[in-house]
Amino acid sequence: MHKTISILGSTGSIGTQALDVIARHPERFRVVGLAAGRRIDQLLEQARRFAPAWVSCAEPEGAAALRAALPAGTRVAVGAEGLRAVAVDSEPDVLLAATDGAVAFEAVFAALERGKRIAVANKELIVAAGELLVAAAKRSGAELVPVDSEHSALFQCLVGEPPERIASLILTASGGPFWELPAAAIREASVADALRHPTWNMGVKNTVDSASLMNKGLEVIEASRLFGVPAERIEVLVHRTSVAHGFVVFSDGNVKAQLAPPDMRLPIGYALAYPDRLPDVERVDAFAALGAALDAERARLDFARPDFERFPCLGLAYEALRRGGTVPAALSAANEIAVEAFVRGGIRFGDIAGVVAHALAGTPDEPLSLQSVRGADARARRLAREAVEASSPTPANR
Amino acid sequence: MHKTISILGSTGSIGTQALDVIARHPERFRVVGLAAGRRIDQLLEQARRFAPAWVSCAEPEGAAALRAALPAGTRVAVGAEGLRAVAVDSEPDVLLAATDGAVAFEAVFAALERGKRIAVANKELIVAAGELLVAAAKRSGAELVPVDSEHSALFQCLVGEPPERIASLILTASGGPFWELPAAAIREASVADALRHPTWNMGVKNTVDSASLMNKGLEVIEASRLFGVPAERIEVLVHRTSVAHGFVVFSDGNVKAQLAPPDMRLPIGYALAYPDRLPDVERVDAFAALGAALDAERARLDFARPDFERFPCLGLAYEALRRGGTVPAALSAANEIAVEAFVRGGIRFGDIAGVVAHALAGTPDEPLSLQSVRGADARARRLAREAVEASSPTPANR
Repeated sequence: MHKTISILGSTGSIGTQALDVIARHPERFRVVGLAAGRRIDQLLEQARRFAPAWVSCAEPEGAAALRAALPAGTRVAVGAEGLRAVAVDSEPDVLLAATDGAVAFEAVFAALERGKRIAVANKELIVAAGELLVAAAKRSGAELVPVDSEHSALFQCLVGEPPERIASLILTASGGPFWELPAAAIREASVADALRHPTWNMGVKNTVDSASLMNKGLEVIEASRLFGVPAERIEVLVHRTSVAHGFVVFSDGNVKAQLAPPDMRLPIGYALAYPDRLPDVERVDAFAALGAALDAERARLDFARPDFERFPCLGLAYEALRRGGTVPAALSAANEIAVEAFVRGGIRFGDIAGVVAHALAGTPDEPLSLQSVRGADARARRLAREAVEASSPTPANR
Repeated sequence: MHKTISILGSTGSIGTQALDVIARHPERFRVVGLAAGRRIDQLLEQARRFAPAWVSCAEPEGAAALRAALPAGTRVAVGAEGLRAVAVDSEPDVLLAATDGAVAFEAVFAALERGKRIAVANKELIVAAGELLVAAAKRSGAELVPVDSEHSALFQCLVGEPPERIASLILTASGGPFWELPAAAIREASVADALRHPTWNMGVKNTVDSASLMNKGLEVIEASRLFGVPAERIEVLVHRTSVAHGFVVFSDGNVKAQLAPPDMRLPIGYALAYPDRLPDVERVDAFAALGAALDAERARLDFARPDFERFPCLGLAYEALRRGGTVPAALSAANEIAVEAFVRGGIRFGDIAGVVAHALAGTPDEPLSLQSVRGADARARRLAREAVEASSPTPANR
């Protein structure tokens, strides 16, 4: 029996790597739905290769092109309706939610309400509306399986364990390109500096977030939502080699950790195969898997506490998590604006935290709902733009 | 509801630590059977404190003393029958098998056949007859939960996982007191040298085994039996600080590890509470749990490959595991004789491996059964004594 998979965001980095994994396991997986945005040529190629029942894209012109090129049996849909059709009407065993931002929220929510298993790679979704998604999953019995490497690590450590026995969670952070720099150098760091990530290859936004440790802050919020653990019991440790991705400390004093080479296909494959595991990845050298081999005879794993002073974004994320409600959504939205401004030279790297802090200061404490989260997102973007405009421009960064 | 526990070997190191754990959780556990050997005073004190329904000791005189001192409701039994009564007639939810050697084999086997969960701390039992025990457990649906820290680590990493997806197992070894020494110095090491163990406190036999890495070799065999993984997929890594105890490498490239401070009460508590975990161990500092903190800001875990040339006992254990049948039983028995001879000055430390190798060379390849394993044990002891007598005495070691 094939496990059927639909993908929201099939032409993105996670979507294409997921299709890689699926292509290597034709005996296990069958693609039944693919949704992308505007990369029609790539989507068309994917649809030809994997022959899903449903295909969806962002705009009618793209849909027309798909309809003209695909066999008559393929159903083509558009926009929000299309996302929903791929998420729900394609009836997948697993829905991989790998779009950016909030665009797929309703589609994911609808699939959760129908009890579908969701492999979730959309960080913003969990940060902004994680409580709503988790509540919907609890009501329908759906499972949320994280794809992010750190959350996959924690999820793997928690398989078969009583969740009420979690004492604390530890997420590791690579520390990013500025980990060794003094505060003044970080403040003035250029875009080119920020894009030098030590171990992972990822997009510009994620790489800047990794340099500011906002990425890790968002992951702390995501972990809190997914595993029901409060801020004060989630810790971050800097681990430069990105071999260990997460630790669960249990109430009885035992600790479990997950380790893997920094390759997103591993957590993607896990999320698709769960509760099984893929059988045939090439034979792992256990010693190499412990990684960071300094020489042929020795491997070492190093961990250090993060520095909240040089990396204030991490503290802002903890603050947002502690306040709860719509504040995490505001954090995520304001950070998007701040990173955009930094990348186009509008603010210094060191101003990102100030822009986000300004938005958090203007966000009221209010209960989370589908309505309030949209309002908080819009308000935070407006507040962040205000703060960007108030910053002195930095032509040196362009 | 209390979980009822019976203990074979209640006055030994594991037994007394298990009673410590039980005493701290009177709301969860109730002792229904205690069996010990000749430490009657200590057993009496335990029986008074925990009020089990069944008590057993090795000899009739001890039993008479127990009967005279304990309330009339307490049933007192002796010898093999007593072990069996404590294992089976006390009807425990969990039987902790913590005697040394083969004395409790029949009792443990009988409990397994009745589908009892066994917390197994008796290494020799699993090494010599693990296949028989695991087969009995499969027939009755009984579970074997290991107590040894390394096997507890692997067991914890495997909870909720598909066992057919194990690619390999890694056990860590402290390396013992001789890890940094050249081969010549190891060969001439004194008993006092061997008893300096870097991290764990344990008996003389175990400490000598830890210095020779035979301990780790026996654990490799034990892991193979408990988890059904062959020799070539079990690795040993030397990890001086004994923070990480075991790793499971899965077929999909993910690795899980278990870490804990070197305190036997943790794996004991886990085995008693499984599938739950104890709730209230004092709050764990996750960073300290990663251990080996070199200073306040950094923790480090080091791993190195073991050296089979300086530590030939490890290779002998792999050889015994590969040959299978009764050879592991012969290994374990011959090693007991060799260690005894070393401790009383009869052979050099460097002769231990030779004595064991002599016994293995004289052990035929034969199928494992209750009969053949006893014969192999006796033959190996005889062969080992021969080899000890052929060695030159070493008065310097006395």
